[in-house]
Amino acid sequence: MKKEKLIYEGKAKRVYATSDSRLLITEFKDSLTAFNAKKRGSFEGKGEINKKITTLIFKHLEASGIPTHLVEWHPEYLVVKKLSMIPLEVVVRNVAAGSFSTRYGWPEGRTLDQPLVEFYYKKDDLNDPLMAEDHIQALGILSVSEVAKLKLLALNINILLKNLMAQVDLKLIDFKIEFGRDFDGRIILGDEISPDSCRLWDAQTGEKRDKDRFRRDLGRVEESYRLILEKLERIFKK
Amino acid sequence: MKKEKLIYEGKAKRVYATSDSRLLITEFKDSLTAFNAKKRGSFEGKGEINKKITTLIFKHLEASGIPTHLVEWHPEYLVVKKLSMIPLEVVVRNVAAGSFSTRYGWPEGRTLDQPLVEFYYKKDDLNDPLMAEDHIQALGILSVSEVAKLKLLALNINILLKNLMAQVDLKLIDFKIEFGRDFDGRIILGDEISPDSCRLWDAQTGEKRDKDRFRRDLGRVEESYRLILEKLERIFKK
Repeated sequence: MKKEKLIYEGKAKRVYATSDSRLLITEFKDSLTAFNAKKRGSFEGKGEINKKITTLIFKHLEASGIPTHLVEWHPEYLVVKKLSMIPLEVVVRNVAAGSFSTRYGWPEGRTLDQPLVEFYYKKDDLNDPLMAEDHIQALGILSVSEVAKLKLLALNINILLKNLMAQVDLKLIDFKIEFGRDFDGRIILGDEISPDSCRLWDAQTGEKRDKDRFRRDLGRVEESYRLILEKLERIFKK
Repeated sequence: MKKEKLIYEGKAKRVYATSDSRLLITEFKDSLTAFNAKKRGSFEGKGEINKKITTLIFKHLEASGIPTHLVEWHPEYLVVKKLSMIPLEVVVRNVAAGSFSTRYGWPEGRTLDQPLVEFYYKKDDLNDPLMAEDHIQALGILSVSEVAKLKLLALNINILLKNLMAQVDLKLIDFKIEFGRDFDGRIILGDEISPDSCRLWDAQTGEKRDKDRFRRDLGRVEESYRLILEKLERIFKK
């Protein structure tokens, strides 16, 4: 599989066409962005770390029955299914943090009675606004039953991811995922799952191990990302 | 019924205790505010107009089976049931406008396929943030079935209000309502329905007849408010 034309370059990834019209190649960039790219940074090797973490997690999810876009993993890139992306960021929260805490005045760290699924309209120029489920239908993005399906998938991924992180002494606070439709119209998990898109706190000390270290200038960003990868590699080698 | 201690003064109303612990007296103020009170104005008689419009509309809703807090109307004030207010602003939209258009990039004036109910957390210091239905439960504001009940009430009110406004050649674009619980725990319509809380466009010309004239400095605010009252008074006198 060789990369052909660059068809998309985002904040953290480059996506290339391949000789197979159903497959794409994704490269993970070293850049870090936050607050809709108003804050920018990077560290060498970050792309590789996130690629590896995403691969381990997606393989684990796939093995547990969650359909993902991952097809092959290589040292420099991933081969993924070409999806028609659904323009939603799906966020699952176990503990109040980030924009949830700011928006509703709930203290960061307060556990929610049950996992909460949120939807954001993926539109950078609108700053990815929150959507209620009725908005998703009103804007013609998904039907009622498709929203229900996405929600169920997100909650199942949450259980798997929470358990996985607990095995490596990390507490899954929240995470963001994206879905798309494959050539057969099936809804499939796309994009990535990495410390860029999850909040992970040390299960014992509560120390933040994710992109909040960059967002909030807490230092040791690289160390935290590497630690997560090492922990995951260790359990998957068992 | 005499007013006793002032118990609440908001942007557009004053609320007094009465000798009956189950009843309150509400006075409507002449002030106009917008954008979470960042923009302020007023005109003489505005409070009276809104009081009269609210009275006509609430009487009409009550006669159509919607429970409201309205008990008695007097030249200077209304007597209403004392409610324990639910901290939500419930918005029903028939046509895209205002914050919906801004938030999702939908052109103002585009009709929605079906009426859309939105919920906002009533908290001035948080700028009344949008809530999905799951947020309402997560924050312990209402149960799933209570949210469903509120939504149904809001949609029924929308039908009645849309038909009423059509009779006076006004198109109901959207409106905001608030609910509370009475002494028996029943969910009841509170607050007001007036050109302060509705978007009403002239059915023929599309001219705005509501608080957007104030928000957007379109002039003839008073004339528009008076016109709505006169139109409603005319049909209720028939």
